[in-house]
Amino acid sequence: MNLECPLPQIDFDIITIGHGSGGLLTHKLLKAGVFNLFDNEILRQHHDGATLDLNGKTVFTTDSFVVSPLFFPGGNIGDLAINGTVNDLAMCGGIPNYISVAFILEEGLEMATFWKVLVSMKKAAENAGVRIVTGDTKVVERGKGDQIFINTTGIGSLHPKASIGLHRIKSGDKILLSAEMAHHGTTIMSLREGFQFEAEIKSDTCSLHEPVARLLDQFGSGIRLFRDPTRGGVATTLAEIAGDTQLGIDVYQEQLPQNDLINSACELLGLDPWYVANEGLFLSIVDSSMADQLLLNLKSHPLSRNAAVIGEVTDNHRGKVILHNAIGGKRVLGMLPGEQLPRIC
Amino acid sequence: MNLECPLPQIDFDIITIGHGSGGLLTHKLLKAGVFNLFDNEILRQHHDGATLDLNGKTVFTTDSFVVSPLFFPGGNIGDLAINGTVNDLAMCGGIPNYISVAFILEEGLEMATFWKVLVSMKKAAENAGVRIVTGDTKVVERGKGDQIFINTTGIGSLHPKASIGLHRIKSGDKILLSAEMAHHGTTIMSLREGFQFEAEIKSDTCSLHEPVARLLDQFGSGIRLFRDPTRGGVATTLAEIAGDTQLGIDVYQEQLPQNDLINSACELLGLDPWYVANEGLFLSIVDSSMADQLLLNLKSHPLSRNAAVIGEVTDNHRGKVILHNAIGGKRVLGMLPGEQLPRIC
Repeated sequence: MNLECPLPQIDFDIITIGHGSGGLLTHKLLKAGVFNLFDNEILRQHHDGATLDLNGKTVFTTDSFVVSPLFFPGGNIGDLAINGTVNDLAMCGGIPNYISVAFILEEGLEMATFWKVLVSMKKAAENAGVRIVTGDTKVVERGKGDQIFINTTGIGSLHPKASIGLHRIKSGDKILLSAEMAHHGTTIMSLREGFQFEAEIKSDTCSLHEPVARLLDQFGSGIRLFRDPTRGGVATTLAEIAGDTQLGIDVYQEQLPQNDLINSACELLGLDPWYVANEGLFLSIVDSSMADQLLLNLKSHPLSRNAAVIGEVTDNHRGKVILHNAIGGKRVLGMLPGEQLPRIC
Repeated sequence: MNLECPLPQIDFDIITIGHGSGGLLTHKLLKAGVFNLFDNEILRQHHDGATLDLNGKTVFTTDSFVVSPLFFPGGNIGDLAINGTVNDLAMCGGIPNYISVAFILEEGLEMATFWKVLVSMKKAAENAGVRIVTGDTKVVERGKGDQIFINTTGIGSLHPKASIGLHRIKSGDKILLSAEMAHHGTTIMSLREGFQFEAEIKSDTCSLHEPVARLLDQFGSGIRLFRDPTRGGVATTLAEIAGDTQLGIDVYQEQLPQNDLINSACELLGLDPWYVANEGLFLSIVDSSMADQLLLNLKSHPLSRNAAVIGEVTDNHRGKVILHNAIGGKRVLGMLPGEQLPRIC
């Protein structure tokens, strides 16, 4: 338990169905716990929603988080839920401003567990500069949920220089990847399988708004698209882009940022890193004339210091992604066909 | 199944874990189903979020829906999820504009069931004039969810004349209720208990944005507060207001809009209508000098034709709600102490 934020004085240790009643128990849970922890003048309105100031165009995104287990090296469902939505805003060219949090709790959840998650959410929100301004709590019976599901929905203002869209992608554009693939999925899978590695494998969950905003500040409309390859991995994200734009994509295995530990973990677990979920990296598709400078900008931020140009957009093999290996071999990267790792986020 | 929106041509009848993978199956589900059904130019961006235009102040609200059973007389989890969030926006003085939808599906869900829910959502959204612009789909294993949970998060622009807030409530203000209490909760409870009544009891789920906007158009800042008394019922909502403002509230049993069928159903089910959930009614707390005209305005809209002034705010018995009956009896209405009807919404 975090000492900076001790569990509040409450007369229950366990979440019961009554905590979802909308009545006295819900009130106690919110007043003693959530409202105090997330306190700000907007939440203090105690209304069903929040009234906010936003300038210009608004970016809006939602995600539900059902990751299992709740806690894993590098994070937990709470910071994952904040970071994931902050990142989706950033990928749309948004400057993250406000976030809503909605919980579906399973009856019998320990309050201490819930509290740990809430404290992580608070820290992740502070770290990303977003304010938690409205929320909801429901409780379902034992066996009808799984401890904690979280929905976070974010709104932000569009970066004034952003001009993000699939329709802006052109043949010749360069594709950059901000970091090594597969940290998050490999971590969750190792945990589930009970594998131990010499060095710790950790989820890469983090908020990417900062490196993204720095790119937009400097390169504006030179950036065609951002995407964070979460479920389905980098391969699925690229396959979607190729499919939606009906342009071809070439990527090069030897240009990928590498992490030996993750590579061996993937091998041991039988995972193809191209399809493993990530929570702290992003793809940029950019005007080729800016690619070198853009790479320098990325490398100067700690979250993307291992960034690399990994490929380019082409008029050839339209709608398809081709992976080239070091010895000239080729492989088509399609979308993840089934499920590799259920409940990864 | 609705003939206007037949189930799309898909090669699966059942939701599997793979439909939450973010890969090919998720893609098929979205492309064949959700994207086509909810189609609009913002969704067509196929990004992780949506970029929107909003003018002035923004209202933001979230709710998760876990109602059981999924289908009930008068509605289902789909229209409930749209109407509920539209209503929360309206209660904040917002003009509903955009909505996000996030599903947590249980493995094994029949696609036909999901589709029925989706079609209801589409209709409810059209009816309320909101656009579904972004979303998310997760799938959990059998026994870790319950068919369908839905989160909807809404944003809207603040009505230019709205000036809603607990701090604006004063002693002397009148309290109006837009319709009879307890339709929704009584319907769900009857269904669960297998009770049959001579006439059909139906949920009151509907979007209240229209009667609310008409009041704001005419009375502007004369309206101090709107609230829709869902979980916990009218009593809990009033008790929260009394607690937050530290003003007293008097309400009068004989002034309540009445529905004999609901009254007898509540009696039979052992429910106190004051604590039963509603999905299609709202409370207004208003400047007393406008109360009569405001009531006329309410009565001229079909969703609030049975509206009534049910009480007033007072400097007496601060922080408490007192219910007066026809023969001078008094009773304190506190918050719902435990859970009356789990998973009512």
